[in-house]
Amino acid sequence: MTKINEIQNYLKENNVDMAFITTPDNVFYYSQFNSNPHERLLGVMIFQTSKPVLVCPKMEVPNAINSGWQYDVIGHLDTDQPFELIKDKVLLNNINPSSIAIEKSHLTVERLEVLQQIFPQANFIRLDEKINEMRVIKSADEIDKMRQAAQLADYAIEVGCKEIAEGKTEMEILTAIENAIKDKGCTMSFDTMVLSGPKSASPHGTPGNRKIQKGDLILFDLGVVYDGYCSDITRTVAFGSVTGAQKEVYELVKSANEKAIEAVKPGVRAMDLDKIARDIITDGGLGNDFPHRLGHGLGISVHEYPSITATNELELKPGMVFTIEPGIYNEIAGVRIEDDVVVTESGVEVLTKYPKELIIL
Amino acid sequence: MTKINEIQNYLKENNVDMAFITTPDNVFYYSQFNSNPHERLLGVMIFQTSKPVLVCPKMEVPNAINSGWQYDVIGHLDTDQPFELIKDKVLLNNINPSSIAIEKSHLTVERLEVLQQIFPQANFIRLDEKINEMRVIKSADEIDKMRQAAQLADYAIEVGCKEIAEGKTEMEILTAIENAIKDKGCTMSFDTMVLSGPKSASPHGTPGNRKIQKGDLILFDLGVVYDGYCSDITRTVAFGSVTGAQKEVYELVKSANEKAIEAVKPGVRAMDLDKIARDIITDGGLGNDFPHRLGHGLGISVHEYPSITATNELELKPGMVFTIEPGIYNEIAGVRIEDDVVVTESGVEVLTKYPKELIIL
Repeated sequence: MTKINEIQNYLKENNVDMAFITTPDNVFYYSQFNSNPHERLLGVMIFQTSKPVLVCPKMEVPNAINSGWQYDVIGHLDTDQPFELIKDKVLLNNINPSSIAIEKSHLTVERLEVLQQIFPQANFIRLDEKINEMRVIKSADEIDKMRQAAQLADYAIEVGCKEIAEGKTEMEILTAIENAIKDKGCTMSFDTMVLSGPKSASPHGTPGNRKIQKGDLILFDLGVVYDGYCSDITRTVAFGSVTGAQKEVYELVKSANEKAIEAVKPGVRAMDLDKIARDIITDGGLGNDFPHRLGHGLGISVHEYPSITATNELELKPGMVFTIEPGIYNEIAGVRIEDDVVVTESGVEVLTKYPKELIIL
Repeated sequence: MTKINEIQNYLKENNVDMAFITTPDNVFYYSQFNSNPHERLLGVMIFQTSKPVLVCPKMEVPNAINSGWQYDVIGHLDTDQPFELIKDKVLLNNINPSSIAIEKSHLTVERLEVLQQIFPQANFIRLDEKINEMRVIKSADEIDKMRQAAQLADYAIEVGCKEIAEGKTEMEILTAIENAIKDKGCTMSFDTMVLSGPKSASPHGTPGNRKIQKGDLILFDLGVVYDGYCSDITRTVAFGSVTGAQKEVYELVKSANEKAIEAVKPGVRAMDLDKIARDIITDGGLGNDFPHRLGHGLGISVHEYPSITATNELELKPGMVFTIEPGIYNEIAGVRIEDDVVVTESGVEVLTKYPKELIIL
């Protein structure tokens, strides 16, 4: 069954006339067309039985067709009212929707109000959970792409470590990493982080012109997109030397990362993983210095469903892919260790393979 | 009057109890705090008289304060319900909002539904137009930052032109440009485009491993962020040689760009500029090969209000900054020439200054 067929079945089972999917990553998932429309309208309309329709800026139509889209496309100019074109198309299909499924976590209030105007009799229901349910289970093909993306992330960390030298700036190291990935024909999945010394303790700091000094911890957080699929890795390494207290923090994070990964298997809940990691750090007396969730889903989006938090009761199933990334940030050290893991039939496959023993360069 | 005061006055005049601003660029505009929260909640709440409140992930609180935010901050953990924290804060201020202003072009349906649950008596009105009206007129300080951003964009084009050589790939040239900007301590405002040969005729193509050949046109589209403000420039150059037909296309685009820029002054309408440029290209017989609007507003966002289209009746006012970027894309050539312009009291200041005569490298 294709992904579009699965949505069609969902519409039939739930007596919904059409789905209107507008999140660019979801449009890619269902159409193979990977595009960032900025403020312009991009969407896939799926009906119970009529053929689906793609909506995109007119100048993107050739790209959409080249991506493999085989059905109708509504290409709109900047002077068009794209929702009017949609209305005409839907009415042409003899569909007068009384129920429309939308992504409430993405669609703006403004666009909903326009849809309410053109389909005044329609009721709007959530499609978010159905899409999450589909996207969260990766196919063998998707996992294979993520394996490649993770291998490139490992390589990027290797490049970063080789680049570290006294007096080099964070930005110089970052540039070397990003160039190495560009040379492989790939892009980063988000802005690369290279944070050194006290800055490694800022979980969302910005790389700059700080120069690497002996005694620094250096935190790399980066990811690579391979054929539309993301990786996301964090490693923290030491330069020159490390204090006993820093080493203790490092070992606590490493243990939290490893024990949580060991526990991954079908049937375990997301919150169980968070608890395993958090308990280790709390037992080490540093629970307050781990201020974020354990991890997040990974795939077409670098942050996607599910969230691996202390409160998420979701049971793991084979094919789920997410990060495990405990961290401790305080005046002694800033350390995070992040891996990408796949839930397998019997347990876990770790996609990111860069070593986790404390490296002193 | 500060920007927050201006919103407070707007709330008083319109009898609205609070504004809840969640677009990251707008949060930056009103709070000075520049942050990408991904799927987490970031927002500024502004009340008629009570002090404003910033909402952000807990780990971002120190960054928010370092950015100069002087009022209260609600820092939320991944396990918190941030809207419950907002409700408590609002009730603590003895405000029971019956009218709340939101950005309908940004707020998701899901978040609106949560707000409707926590403030069931509230009516939700649009704040979008008020924010656009404020942001569209840049202060002298903002224009100065954009001048710097444009100067860096000129420099990036210069680097790109120097880098062009037979057999070099688009990605190699792109990398040299981005490294040069990183060396200046700045970032790009969007993914840099370097498109060569037939690819220059794809207005939204992707740079890759195509090697530069003699006879290519090479299109650069790029921008730089300087202190939170964006530039956006496009130049098209030739390598080795150019055909007479290509030169004709180039001169048509150049003329459309220049004549539209000459017409910029207070009182002229956005649509008038589009018409001037479009008429020149249409009179040259290539109107169908100019498939996009003439330009877009520029500032904190690389695409912002207003849109310079054939239908926008907006009258220009001093302090507005936008792009003018006619283009022709067909089998002969792909050419776009884009400048950033400021409407002044008497006419126009062009921020991007890289030469526009056809350069044959």
